[in-house]
Amino acid sequence: MAGAKYFISDNASGVHPEVMAALASANHGHAVAYGHDAHTAQATALLREHFGAPPEILFVLTGTGANVLALQCMLHSYEAVICADCSHLNRDECGAPEKFIGAKLLSAPTREGKLYPELIEPLLRDTGMVHRAQPRVVTISQCTEWGTVYTLDELKSLAGYCHARGLRLHVDGARLCNAAAALDAGLAAMTAECGIDVLSFGGTKNGLMGAEAVIFFDQALAPAAGFYRKQATQLSSKMRFVAVQFQALLSNDLWRRNARHANAMAARLSGAVSGTDAVQLVMPVETNAIFARLSPAHIAELQAAAVFAVWDTAQSIVRWMTSFDTTEDEVDSFAETIRSLAGGK
Amino acid sequence: MAGAKYFISDNASGVHPEVMAALASANHGHAVAYGHDAHTAQATALLREHFGAPPEILFVLTGTGANVLALQCMLHSYEAVICADCSHLNRDECGAPEKFIGAKLLSAPTREGKLYPELIEPLLRDTGMVHRAQPRVVTISQCTEWGTVYTLDELKSLAGYCHARGLRLHVDGARLCNAAAALDAGLAAMTAECGIDVLSFGGTKNGLMGAEAVIFFDQALAPAAGFYRKQATQLSSKMRFVAVQFQALLSNDLWRRNARHANAMAARLSGAVSGTDAVQLVMPVETNAIFARLSPAHIAELQAAAVFAVWDTAQSIVRWMTSFDTTEDEVDSFAETIRSLAGGK
Amino acid sequence: MAGAKYFISDNASGVHPEVMAALASANHGHAVAYGHDAHTAQATALLREHFGAPPEILFVLTGTGANVLALQCMLHSYEAVICADCSHLNRDECGAPEKFIGAKLLSAPTREGKLYPELIEPLLRDTGMVHRAQPRVVTISQCTEWGTVYTLDELKSLAGYCHARGLRLHVDGARLCNAAAALDAGLAAMTAECGIDVLSFGGTKNGLMGAEAVIFFDQALAPAAGFYRKQATQLSSKMRFVAVQFQALLSNDLWRRNARHANAMAARLSGAVSGTDAVQLVMPVETNAIFARLSPAHIAELQAAAVFAVWDTAQSIVRWMTSFDTTEDEVDSFAETIRSLAGGK
Amino acid sequence: MAGAKYFISDNASGVHPEVMAALASANHGHAVAYGHDAHTAQATALLREHFGAPPEILFVLTGTGANVLALQCMLHSYEAVICADCSHLNRDECGAPEKFIGAKLLSAPTREGKLYPELIEPLLRDTGMVHRAQPRVVTISQCTEWGTVYTLDELKSLAGYCHARGLRLHVDGARLCNAAAALDAGLAAMTAECGIDVLSFGGTKNGLMGAEAVIFFDQALAPAAGFYRKQATQLSSKMRFVAVQFQALLSNDLWRRNARHANAMAARLSGAVSGTDAVQLVMPVETNAIFARLSPAHIAELQAAAVFAVWDTAQSIVRWMTSFDTTEDEVDSFAETIRSLAGGK
Repeated sequence: MAGAKYFISDNASGVHPEVMAALASANHGHAVAYGHDAHTAQATALLREHFGAPPEILFVLTGTGANVLALQCMLHSYEAVICADCSHLNRDECGAPEKFIGAKLLSAPTREGKLYPELIEPLLRDTGMVHRAQPRVVTISQCTEWGTVYTLDELKSLAGYCHARGLRLHVDGARLCNAAAALDAGLAAMTAECGIDVLSFGGTKNGLMGAEAVIFFDQALAPAAGFYRKQATQLSSKMRFVAVQFQALLSNDLWRRNARHANAMAARLSGAVSGTDAVQLVMPVETNAIFARLSPAHIAELQAAAVFAVWDTAQSIVRWMTSFDTTEDEVDSFAETIRSLAGGK
Repeated sequence: MAGAKYFISDNASGVHPEVMAALASANHGHAVAYGHDAHTAQATALLREHFGAPPEILFVLTGTGANVLALQCMLHSYEAVICADCSHLNRDECGAPEKFIGAKLLSAPTREGKLYPELIEPLLRDTGMVHRAQPRVVTISQCTEWGTVYTLDELKSLAGYCHARGLRLHVDGARLCNAAAALDAGLAAMTAECGIDVLSFGGTKNGLMGAEAVIFFDQALAPAAGFYRKQATQLSSKMRFVAVQFQALLSNDLWRRNARHANAMAARLSGAVSGTDAVQLVMPVETNAIFARLSPAHIAELQAAAVFAVWDTAQSIVRWMTSFDTTEDEVDSFAETIRSLAGGK
Repeated sequence: MAGAKYFISDNASGVHPEVMAALASANHGHAVAYGHDAHTAQATALLREHFGAPPEILFVLTGTGANVLALQCMLHSYEAVICADCSHLNRDECGAPEKFIGAKLLSAPTREGKLYPELIEPLLRDTGMVHRAQPRVVTISQCTEWGTVYTLDELKSLAGYCHARGLRLHVDGARLCNAAAALDAGLAAMTAECGIDVLSFGGTKNGLMGAEAVIFFDQALAPAAGFYRKQATQLSSKMRFVAVQFQALLSNDLWRRNARHANAMAARLSGAVSGTDAVQLVMPVETNAIFARLSPAHIAELQAAAVFAVWDTAQSIVRWMTSFDTTEDEVDSFAETIRSLAGGK
Repeated sequence: MAGAKYFISDNASGVHPEVMAALASANHGHAVAYGHDAHTAQATALLREHFGAPPEILFVLTGTGANVLALQCMLHSYEAVICADCSHLNRDECGAPEKFIGAKLLSAPTREGKLYPELIEPLLRDTGMVHRAQPRVVTISQCTEWGTVYTLDELKSLAGYCHARGLRLHVDGARLCNAAAALDAGLAAMTAECGIDVLSFGGTKNGLMGAEAVIFFDQALAPAAGFYRKQATQLSSKMRFVAVQFQALLSNDLWRRNARHANAMAARLSGAVSGTDAVQLVMPVETNAIFARLSPAHIAELQAAAVFAVWDTAQSIVRWMTSFDTTEDEVDSFAETIRSLAGGK
């Protein structure tokens, strides 16, 4: 769809120019493969600075790879992962966690995509009973699949709850930067300082070409991780080109600039259309995603003007997502089109 | 090791400038993720041209990912993969195939890294016996881990042998281009026309940043592949940046230019040192790897001058590997250092 | 708890005397192991008679083993099993299916433990999308974990629904005999004639010592099963002692006599207590299980008189289960105790 | 083969009468399932007495189940099991360890079926390298698949070697009693006192109907075992009938009587035929297996007189195996037939 406006996902975006420049800058001479290079060392040091000196950071290539690796290090196959029923891990990874780890996911319904202790508690009934997969890890998404954000207090409270019950806390941070921008918080403040054990830190959706990191705040979990990364087929040979992307992302506040811009574009769009009859926002817009209910006829009409996803056909809900490279013009033009829809049912 | 000469591996090389240019050229605007973009379509079409219109091509991110995905589509977990004991799959993937597929590898000793029917035959004795993992796939590396090359006749003969016994043939082509250059053969001639069923086609070691392809010549195996790729955590979101690397590789004969150059540099180096007393070549130099026996003292001396791997400490064998970007000067200078070693132990 | 009355589960019962006699009768001389013996052949033939000549029957040792083996033959790891959220497979097998098969279970809420097409339909939305585990098998329990029974019409309708959507239908028949007794139907009438694809046929809960069978009505699924049984560690060496148990079960209508008796004892108990103030039956009593709500104080009082399970502490629901060897006296005496509880909670 | 003499395997034998009596004795009343019964407690106590108070003993149903469970508790999937290439685990379990554990087996050639430190050492080269599955467990069979026996000194030495290198030692004791009888050693003397970490203790081949035990001498490994047993589908519901078999085996020295008899019958047979021209013993006869080379014509002739296995067709080697219930008459009659073969091929 040449020339189309894209609101389908932040992973439809390209690569930020500073990241492209970094990739080019890493491309001279030889460097020993598999992470034994200077860029990997520098990117690791930078991440440690931002995240509060965690003991081990592993770069991987996909978000699913990051999640699978993180969880594999956190539990045995007879244990279970508690997750939101709407989570990417549960719905959008084609059973990758079950396949690789051999463990059960126990999903819970959420409030606006967020897990709370009272939603987790009913899943903890049968501890010690050999017939039941034993809950061991709680995983949450920050921000959530609905674009909502856990507050720092919610995170601390959830981590405390988990640790008091012998559970570990994993965060799928595919869009952690958007959450950080929303909260105006630093990366360590949202993670290490809240008591998170392991983080999947996403870069791809925030302007990188394809790079994710698994960050182990719990030192005891780290030693196995390097081996599991290899076994999970996620060990890149020319690692410098993965690592250097994170160097760019963490330099000159690029991670925050990108996330803030994406969030701002979503706010601009939702602000522009929230008063119209045809559109009903079904979720608070806290980061870079807008979930709206429109009539099927209006959805069809809009899809001629922009590329976006129908999130739930039965409910007639669409998702509009903005990115670091979404322009104000694109937003304004799309908002204009939306506002021009005849007032829906 | 700043300014060092690198003969450690072709994956220590950087990215070919034409590939970097292609990556930059793909970086404008949005494109739907996960392969629903124009570059993926174009790269797929180009690969089909070169490989003889196979039904399905999947891009992945690592060589281990390619091998695991290919094999997963080719056998059930109670079946077995016959491989060379020196194969990357068997030795250098940390058990990734066993982990993901749950199947047994049956390894056989080789002649110069190559499997032949008479080496496979003893492993086929117990067909139909439920106690034994049932051989279903033979996998070979072209070129091999010892840098040797199967001739086209050997490939055809092996494929015929496999198919006559109900076995499928997989080729780990992490360095297929080097083999093609050595044989002066086309890509289809080495694969589709020889009867290969599935190919892991490597790009990373031949000048790409990080891109591999799994090519299914056997149509029946393809439908599951897309799902297994996702489940194997190998589905890239910003796929255009993977695909465009293959567009560059297959344009203007870059794949062949790069491979020929790497091979030529190995020939230049081996030619320059093969007469010396201190060095004994232990394997014919057919592609871009040289395996040589030196005294431990000489190895230590050389490691001060260049970065390379001791392949077998017990046997005192080293591997020197050249790449698309190895220069004649680097080769000549390293050869000079080698020749200057005191003769023999 | 010596001399106690047991209503905890039908698997707390012993072995029927006719089965013990059969075991003794099989114990003379040698017989080739792993199923190459006369008893295995005879038991297989008997099962084929009763189930309508299915192509392959495999004996296994546990119910979880039967389910895991059945499902492994029915789907790939990227596919999904649709099951009731209360199913044994989902709740009581410690993630064994996920571990062995690597596939996702998609659970649905039920009506009285039973799945219906309209409960399945919402799980079929994303067919063909690589991010989602692809539904391939529907599994139901007959009778259900709540002791309820699918009618023959419901089974036929469900099988038709499944096949029309490319789904296979598996039945966990750990208590199939109880359901057959309840419906006064034959074994073939409940399975082959309803269009079921694969059945886990339970013997242990109905008077055997420890023997289950996996029955493949869909011939195409059978060839792999023998290998998967071995790989799943469920291939018994002295198979004659597994098979002969089924010979006894299928001789002289023992399967039906046992099941009818167990069902009759549950009816007797529920009938005797259903009018009392202290006890509220929460599920129709169709087979050999009674689910009742009592006050916690009454539960505690009753547990001094008999061994039984608290099914749901939060809801204060208990399960009383009868067996082939539950006596009328045990039932009457326990009913008397229940009736003597002070009325109401 | 009615009336045939069976020398095919000790698992072709029946159940010892004392074991049948024990099974009958356990069959009255109800008992809580899954091991919460008196027989399980008593059998566990008896095993602890004999094996030196190990912390946890789990009963399972098959030898492959015992091995898979034991190993699953001993290593991570990225680690490797070092085993004899001729081991049951490697050759005769259809890849069950790879499927369930996801780990690699590293097989080594042996001397008469036995592993020694110098055979293990070459497999330990790449410790710490992420590309290589990390050796973590050494598993041996006592007695071996060739019927040979490790001496107590060999066991102690091997355990010391393993522990010094951070490796755990597992023993597949499917025929441990035969080895104990051969050494005239007690069960603790052969296991706990030699430093073994985990034992698969076989009962089925020594007169039981179908019962094995996994014995954890290393306490740290036990807590996960109960969950893994369930997940491995090896948790029997009517456990008392598994446990009581071990009660019988460990009462009145039945384990030793059975094993001694079986060994004696093998000695009697090998003694009777070892001088003949037609038969060449290819392995010392230390327990209840005889491996002999005969001409193919003689093998065919003998197979008309008795049921036994051709072990290696290419080498023309057969295996004759005796059991607790092999009679002197059967041995003498078979020996007579063998001696009557025309001399030599």
